[in-house]
Amino acid sequence: MSDAVEVVDLRAARTALREHAPLVHCLTNTVVQTLTANALLAVGAAPAMVDAPQEAGDFAAIASAVLVNVGTVNARTAEAMRLAARSAGAAGTPWVLDPVAVGGLAYRTALAGELVALAPAVVRGNPSEIMALTGAGSGGRGVDSTAGADDAASAAAGLAGRTGGVVAVSGEVDLITDGARTVRVGGGSPLLTRTTGAGCALGALVAAYVAATRDPLTGAVAAHAHVALAAERAAATAAGPGTFAAAWLDALDAVGPDDLAGADVRSA
Amino acid sequence: MSDAVEVVDLRAARTALREHAPLVHCLTNTVVQTLTANALLAVGAAPAMVDAPQEAGDFAAIASAVLVNVGTVNARTAEAMRLAARSAGAAGTPWVLDPVAVGGLAYRTALAGELVALAPAVVRGNPSEIMALTGAGSGGRGVDSTAGADDAASAAAGLAGRTGGVVAVSGEVDLITDGARTVRVGGGSPLLTRTTGAGCALGALVAAYVAATRDPLTGAVAAHAHVALAAERAAATAAGPGTFAAAWLDALDAVGPDDLAGADVRSA
Amino acid sequence: MSDAVEVVDLRAARTALREHAPLVHCLTNTVVQTLTANALLAVGAAPAMVDAPQEAGDFAAIASAVLVNVGTVNARTAEAMRLAARSAGAAGTPWVLDPVAVGGLAYRTALAGELVALAPAVVRGNPSEIMALTGAGSGGRGVDSTAGADDAASAAAGLAGRTGGVVAVSGEVDLITDGARTVRVGGGSPLLTRTTGAGCALGALVAAYVAATRDPLTGAVAAHAHVALAAERAAATAAGPGTFAAAWLDALDAVGPDDLAGADVRSA
Repeated sequence: MSDAVEVVDLRAARTALREHAPLVHCLTNTVVQTLTANALLAVGAAPAMVDAPQEAGDFAAIASAVLVNVGTVNARTAEAMRLAARSAGAAGTPWVLDPVAVGGLAYRTALAGELVALAPAVVRGNPSEIMALTGAGSGGRGVDSTAGADDAASAAAGLAGRTGGVVAVSGEVDLITDGARTVRVGGGSPLLTRTTGAGCALGALVAAYVAATRDPLTGAVAAHAHVALAAERAAATAAGPGTFAAAWLDALDAVGPDDLAGADVRSA
Repeated sequence: MSDAVEVVDLRAARTALREHAPLVHCLTNTVVQTLTANALLAVGAAPAMVDAPQEAGDFAAIASAVLVNVGTVNARTAEAMRLAARSAGAAGTPWVLDPVAVGGLAYRTALAGELVALAPAVVRGNPSEIMALTGAGSGGRGVDSTAGADDAASAAAGLAGRTGGVVAVSGEVDLITDGARTVRVGGGSPLLTRTTGAGCALGALVAAYVAATRDPLTGAVAAHAHVALAAERAAATAAGPGTFAAAWLDALDAVGPDDLAGADVRSA
Repeated sequence: MSDAVEVVDLRAARTALREHAPLVHCLTNTVVQTLTANALLAVGAAPAMVDAPQEAGDFAAIASAVLVNVGTVNARTAEAMRLAARSAGAAGTPWVLDPVAVGGLAYRTALAGELVALAPAVVRGNPSEIMALTGAGSGGRGVDSTAGADDAASAAAGLAGRTGGVVAVSGEVDLITDGARTVRVGGGSPLLTRTTGAGCALGALVAAYVAATRDPLTGAVAAHAHVALAAERAAATAAGPGTFAAAWLDALDAVGPDDLAGADVRSA
């Protein structure tokens, strides 16, 4: 099923996540905090949402991984994000940047530029956000994106070159690259895009997997494959977008190492 | 079924919402952001919750509609609300005010007074909130209301006269007026009042429908009818208030133009 | 079933909660606000989340009970918490402190110390948090806890002595004490610990039950028993952690006075 086994060992990644139960420090937007925490709990990780400047730096240093998502950023949380990213960097803790709606809004676009310079292990976004981070494209109309992941392939590779890490672009087929190697993850369900916070929760799962596997490319691919596989299962039982969200959490929990090893993952 | 067809074309409203997929900028309380975003996605609109003063004015200018809900307002978000309302006004973008718990608390009551003066296309609240905005009544004991919608009929008409827009009062039967015409929407389910944020999500759907139909009265009526109809369907399958919320989102998605045309809507 | 009937009358407590429908003012973390509000609505209480310093003191004075949960505390909400706790104290309104992740983080640990000195009617936490409040233990690794409730028994008794109130320690078996009497509550489900905010919602239900019963020990025990019983029922029908959350809310609603009287509650 997966010809990317040479690049990433999905079975081992799932096992490692369950064994290590990484503590993921999430500085994320208030719309998606609940789903993000529940998604982390569902896969076997531990969430903690600490976003005060007085605490964010200290907590990032003791967490297994950090997520920085600028969805509802303001002056206070922006400062907490800077402190957490610096602290994670100093402690050697991997952190993930999710540049929600960057490109369309000057304030967060400037902040995301600062954060990119602090070398996130993974940047995860939709095509317009990734292109906006590299100065390409004109941004989307906010949080959605009309471009496909491959439209952002060169922007992603360029951005990975700048951060020294991995860049993951979400789309019908996700594209994940460290600049040298590129992996594509298929599957999923359109209902994911009709569930607020599914993409943001994916960013948190990337952080959890990177902490568990100690490899940004493996972690990013495993998280995307896990989310897509769980979405397919949930879509098979859901009556609509409301029941889908709960079924997706159930499926995130249920997907085991053997399941994940059969995900639609292709190296190129 | 509906004798209000001369006033509002519900079938056309539902079709327009699906076609235009309006981007609704929500400055709303943190308790209900998730349900609000999911309700917007369920009906076919696009949500974005941008509530920093640095961004709210810019974003309101590019959104299709804006929702301002003062449920958990603080100094920062109050400033963002003022900027968004002014920017929406300048751009000709329709915006909706939800004066949660106004009347009982001085800080938000003063803010709501400022916002009313900025001419929202629709004000949506429960009877005690609408009466409080006009100086009538003594406010509720917070977010609930013991009065019926018709108790606020004259306050609603007076408020519509001041804003030049529409006022919608929620109750067992909702009352919606532009000062000259009044429409009542029946149906719904008591489970709506046991789901936190259902009323707040309704405010966001009003914004979406007003953007799609370009008419505040039509938009407000269509949103109330859509919410009520979906609640009836969800109540028929739910085992309690927890499963109701997910079933309601499923039903919001499923209600189509022909369904909405059969809603319990009466002009008077 | 329950030999603690001499200490607490669970049947009367459930009846009182439904009759009084207490208004619970929640200053709580943004991750769990929605579930907390829905849990309060499910049991028959009324939630209101007012967390601006401009409003928190006024609102605490008119609420039936107040919950202070420091999960995502920041400078603004810390000030609101101080004002609410002082106002509740002055008004004779019972309030509950949930010291989330206290011990591991200096800022919130200092704040929790201030709040403890304001005499909460009930402190509810996991064993590491309760131990941290008394200077025992080294704190957990954030929000979880590896110790059992009985490990914190002497810390709980000591803390109850300092506040003059009740201390509730969550665990596989919960331990609740006013320093003189100790009650243990069994039952529940491991799925509670995989649902973000279940423990935080429990804190809000403690506040609701204390308001309804006018007795901190009775209120704390009834809330823990109610949550545990509902969790058992929900676990019997849920397919995983996602569907569990909705089923738990359904069960919180369904548990009546006779059900609660049969909960696993033991005085010691």
